[in-house]
Amino acid sequence: MQKRIEEFIKYTIENNNYKGAIIGISGGIDSAVVAKLCVNALGRDKVLGILLPERDSAKETLKDSYLVCESIGINYKMKRISPIVRALGAYSLKPPAAFIPRSIKESYVKGKWEELKDRDTYIEDLLNTGNEEFLKGLAFYRAKHRIRMCKLYLEAEQRGYAVMGTTNKSEMKTGFYVKWGDDSTDIEPIMHLYKTQVIELARQLEIPQEIINKSPSPDLIPGITDEFVLKISYYELDKILMLIETESEDINKEDSQKVNRVKEILKAAEFRNLRNLNLEGI
Amino acid sequence: MQKRIEEFIKYTIENNNYKGAIIGISGGIDSAVVAKLCVNALGRDKVLGILLPERDSAKETLKDSYLVCESIGINYKMKRISPIVRALGAYSLKPPAAFIPRSIKESYVKGKWEELKDRDTYIEDLLNTGNEEFLKGLAFYRAKHRIRMCKLYLEAEQRGYAVMGTTNKSEMKTGFYVKWGDDSTDIEPIMHLYKTQVIELARQLEIPQEIINKSPSPDLIPGITDEFVLKISYYELDKILMLIETESEDINKEDSQKVNRVKEILKAAEFRNLRNLNLEGI
Repeated sequence: MQKRIEEFIKYTIENNNYKGAIIGISGGIDSAVVAKLCVNALGRDKVLGILLPERDSAKETLKDSYLVCESIGINYKMKRISPIVRALGAYSLKPPAAFIPRSIKESYVKGKWEELKDRDTYIEDLLNTGNEEFLKGLAFYRAKHRIRMCKLYLEAEQRGYAVMGTTNKSEMKTGFYVKWGDDSTDIEPIMHLYKTQVIELARQLEIPQEIINKSPSPDLIPGITDEFVLKISYYELDKILMLIETESEDINKEDSQKVNRVKEILKAAEFRNLRNLNLEGI
Repeated sequence: MQKRIEEFIKYTIENNNYKGAIIGISGGIDSAVVAKLCVNALGRDKVLGILLPERDSAKETLKDSYLVCESIGINYKMKRISPIVRALGAYSLKPPAAFIPRSIKESYVKGKWEELKDRDTYIEDLLNTGNEEFLKGLAFYRAKHRIRMCKLYLEAEQRGYAVMGTTNKSEMKTGFYVKWGDDSTDIEPIMHLYKTQVIELARQLEIPQEIINKSPSPDLIPGITDEFVLKISYYELDKILMLIETESEDINKEDSQKVNRVKEILKAAEFRNLRNLNLEGI
């Protein structure tokens, strides 16, 4: 598995005239795995990590990102995107709460999210529905990943480098990405792997334990993790996704409420996964 | 043709829970046509034009954009994106020439482009090749369309509106768009039409003559029009593209140098049109 991906990276970089690879380092497991695979495929001189923290990034984000870069041994640059997000006008949708401690922000945000419990917030996100405050929240958090994409391309294109994607199959299938944000890249080396397979690969690649063990989070809204939004663990999600993919009858042995939840997400994610619609289906 | 597109817009907007449509108005024919089709499909109350000029926009851009909005009768907002492009860091790649008159800027830029005449600059653009200065130029101009996309989504998503695309078939086939910029939208109502067909449709829709008659230009670099970059007129390009599409033998009656140029562009545009590569071809 590892060797095949490294060959794919080497081939696509060379075949498309790229001089190297740029990766947005988030401090999470996916970008760590992609960075390490790139080093193995291209050599460390052709790999550049970019750290893109913003106003609402968790305190651990930078620390973990440095740890990833240092442990893999790549060159990296840190570029704060808050001034760009501010100039865009996204922060004014959710004014800062500069003097409020992070722990209170997190429990406030989680409380807000929980208040909507009888509505299914992730499905609403996928379907672009919800009330005015909810829609503002969508515009707000998605803007950050889109600005990250713009910054990664600005850094990559002036060097003739490719922007590497870090989206995995669990995220792709469930639409758990920002359209025209973290999905918008040149090469996607782990998109064929479920999250649980990425974790396996991370162990094989000797990614630091702290990075492997932390809760996956898009780090866009304080305190909101992947599993909190999806309302299912990656272990359970991947198991069900694989049973659906292989059309296995073992799916009947799974918790039917969870299976239905996953099916509902897959249905709602269809439009996002199509990206855009036109009259010829191009 | 017109009716089918209007039905498509109405259906996709309603079926995907959008409350309306947002269009980036450039002062060009494509966005004028899309805006008018949206008004016919949804009513003017559900259509919002956004004007997004920046430091290097031509003086006529805003004037023409106002003309489009006024003649179609839609609500619109003007949002200068220069502060965002500046915060991103893109302008520092091509420092301003604030005190130099536009006409001199244009002839300077055209001269620069012409100097590269024995190299094929558009093919180099498609293949991400060229020297350092050229690569900086790519990063520079592409950043502007990507920031426009970010701004359009910020405006659209907080209203629950769709971002309408304005890419036509001639642009799509030749890769004449910014990847993760003007190609990144929710609905593409004219992507199945060649540029010359869009011009026909514009006449039918009674778009102002000034808009129909002006030279198509991406308005990203002073003085650089579509046909200057492509080195072929849209009339000739579309004729050849249609002959290739229908596999017509009449292609042998065309100027073989031009046919080869178009085929070379189509080949070089393949990777851009794939958008990104992964191991499963998802």
